Amino acid sequence: VSGAAAPAPFVALLTDFGPGSYYVGQMHAVLARLAPRARVLDLAHDCPAGRVEVGAYLLGRTWPHCPPGTVHVVVVDPGVGGERALLAVRAGGQVFLGPDNGVLGPALGQAEEVRRIANERLFPGSVSATFHGRDVLAPVAARLVAGTPFAEVGPIAVAAGPPPGARLVDGGVEGSVLFEDRFGNLVTNVPGSLFEGWPADGAQEVRVLIGAATLAGLRRTYADVGAGELLAYVGSGEHLEVAVRGGSAAAVLGVGAGARVRVEVAR
Amino acid sequence: VSGAAAPAPFVALLTDFGPGSYYVGQMHAVLARLAPRARVLDLAHDCPAGRVEVGAYLLGRTWPHCPPGTVHVVVVDPGVGGERALLAVRAGGQVFLGPDNGVLGPALGQAEEVRRIANERLFPGSVSATFHGRDVLAPVAARLVAGTPFAEVGPIAVAAGPPPGARLVDGGVEGSVLFEDRFGNLVTNVPGSLFEGWPADGAQEVRVLIGAATLAGLRRTYADVGAGELLAYVGSGEHLEVAVRGGSAAAVLGVGAGARVRVEVAR
Amino acid sequence: VSGAAAPAPFVALLTDFGPGSYYVGQMHAVLARLAPRARVLDLAHDCPAGRVEVGAYLLGRTWPHCPPGTVHVVVVDPGVGGERALLAVRAGGQVFLGPDNGVLGPALGQAEEVRRIANERLFPGSVSATFHGRDVLAPVAARLVAGTPFAEVGPIAVAAGPPPGARLVDGGVEGSVLFEDRFGNLVTNVPGSLFEGWPADGAQEVRVLIGAATLAGLRRTYADVGAGELLAYVGSGEHLEVAVRGGSAAAVLGVGAGARVRVEVAR
Repeated sequence: VSGAAAPAPFVALLTDFGPGSYYVGQMHAVLARLAPRARVLDLAHDCPAGRVEVGAYLLGRTWPHCPPGTVHVVVVDPGVGGERALLAVRAGGQVFLGPDNGVLGPALGQAEEVRRIANERLFPGSVSATFHGRDVLAPVAARLVAGTPFAEVGPIAVAAGPPPGARLVDGGVEGSVLFEDRFGNLVTNVPGSLFEGWPADGAQEVRVLIGAATLAGLRRTYADVGAGELLAYVGSGEHLEVAVRGGSAAAVLGVGAGARVRVEVAR
Repeated sequence: VSGAAAPAPFVALLTDFGPGSYYVGQMHAVLARLAPRARVLDLAHDCPAGRVEVGAYLLGRTWPHCPPGTVHVVVVDPGVGGERALLAVRAGGQVFLGPDNGVLGPALGQAEEVRRIANERLFPGSVSATFHGRDVLAPVAARLVAGTPFAEVGPIAVAAGPPPGARLVDGGVEGSVLFEDRFGNLVTNVPGSLFEGWPADGAQEVRVLIGAATLAGLRRTYADVGAGELLAYVGSGEHLEVAVRGGSAAAVLGVGAGARVRVEVAR
Repeated sequence: VSGAAAPAPFVALLTDFGPGSYYVGQMHAVLARLAPRARVLDLAHDCPAGRVEVGAYLLGRTWPHCPPGTVHVVVVDPGVGGERALLAVRAGGQVFLGPDNGVLGPALGQAEEVRRIANERLFPGSVSATFHGRDVLAPVAARLVAGTPFAEVGPIAVAAGPPPGARLVDGGVEGSVLFEDRFGNLVTNVPGSLFEGWPADGAQEVRVLIGAATLAGLRRTYADVGAGELLAYVGSGEHLEVAVRGGSAAAVLGVGAGARVRVEVAR
């Protein structure tokens, strides 16, 4: 008899319910009741309400750090109770459950199998019209970590498209600010892979236009500029960010979520 | 030797300390030290400060989802250090610890046994005058999940009454807004059971009066009205809520916590 | 074969990332992946952004409640990516990882061993320039709870000094408000040990000067004054606090973080 049991399976939660809210608490409770050996990973609960494209960004930044086999429950679901389907996606050795509104985009981009959640035997309790995260997705996640085969969730499905991201335009890339983080940093939907192989030492080749400002060159970190100065850099989330060292870029630039960002390359 | 150990016992926390606060962190730490095998469920930490009736609502909405045997620590305790007693309640196969100020109302309503926490051997550390959640309730919870019999917490007690809820008045029901959730939805103290068996398809029989608005009929979910429109419905917490599809009812109506709500039935 | 395995080791997190943020979520995920048997204690995530002295206060108030052997990851790190070192500290039977900017002050004050984190074999993944909590500290914590000897983190080091605290001045003690908590209580950097052995029953010997107010005497708890009245007391965090019973001292006094506090003793 080996003393070391297998580690517990993980269920990861990502929502726009707000940290510390009883909506999150109800999901914790349902998972504890239906899957008492599983452990819950709170990946993010501060996604702005109903902002599907921000939810997709947060999922893309967090899921690659999770253990193999993690079952994700993603609830940014402004269409709850309406026509939108609920999906189950297998991708990258993990499983993703959530509404078919684009929030699962980072998983769908590399999906091995996509199914529509339809098997009501997996969520036998009553289902409210406004909280499918608690009444459908959490029970299905509990079944999956307990060993129910993936194929039992429902029939093969084709997902609707992911939310629009940054796009190539004449002379550069046009994107937008996804959100302002707690430090006043502006996180954009421009992927950092765009800049791979480029010099990151204050090179003048790149210009970032945001609000009324034009920033020349990408920096590596806050300490590369003086206190109170603006910088553009590829953040820890591997997307373009704009910050002020020791201050708030959102306040200094007077811009926030939805603001346009343009990246140009000097020829 | 069986490979599967029993699942860990659960201690559930519900407070008005704010998510991410060190008050919650201290309780996590005390529980980890005194009950290292127990697992902690964070049910809610965003109860508005000192709002006992909101704490009672949150407890009523979360505890039924918890596993059998869960020990709850409920800390919405504006009278800490004063005369109010601390109670231990057995109800519905779970245990509830908290101040005798009404916040345990949902458990007291179906209590099998109520005791006053008085046995200081269960909380042998020093007790501050302002944080009994950390110094009394968490240690007692740790003892209970470790197997200390419930009766050892202290003598049988009679709880003070629960906080006032909605009440029947001539021509209808009068209640109030408990709080505004993160989506701008107004959650009221009017129980949804009031409407059981009623048609929920836009029927004109019910009128909800709130702020300057009169809403005709109950809806099932947000998608039942047009974008930007107000709706009244029984929320996932089984109480009357008022929302705006894709917007904030609190902003549209200009009302918040404490606002009067009146439900009338056309004759 | 014993049925009871040893309790899981604990990793404690204290950051200024904000509750529910994906920065915290990424650290949860990294720890789950690299140390799937360890359990994570969220001690505080609402430290004001970049406020090292508040982070040190929060660490000092929470770590003594943690289980023996806890490995702490403390990330209040405005200098990330710059010259500051990352430290590992053994103190009080626990281990502390964080930047050398004073935030580890409560551990350094009683350190048995201080080392600079330098062994890159303990964090073999790519290291971003702006998130060492995720890319260095969490992986090192995972290695330490899995049994890697402390000495392997790097060479012996000498820490820079802790942040300035309250100081003795002619006629009393001068300190400042560290932060305003969720209840509007003003938490100061004046240690409660200053008042040990003093009468706490409204004695006139002590005067607390803050904003435009002068408070005579220390109280034990909120209930010792009338509703709406100001009081000074040693809070559950064992430091001087100023509050209003049933209200917000921050609002009543019009002061917040950084405000001067002076404690005088009548002769």
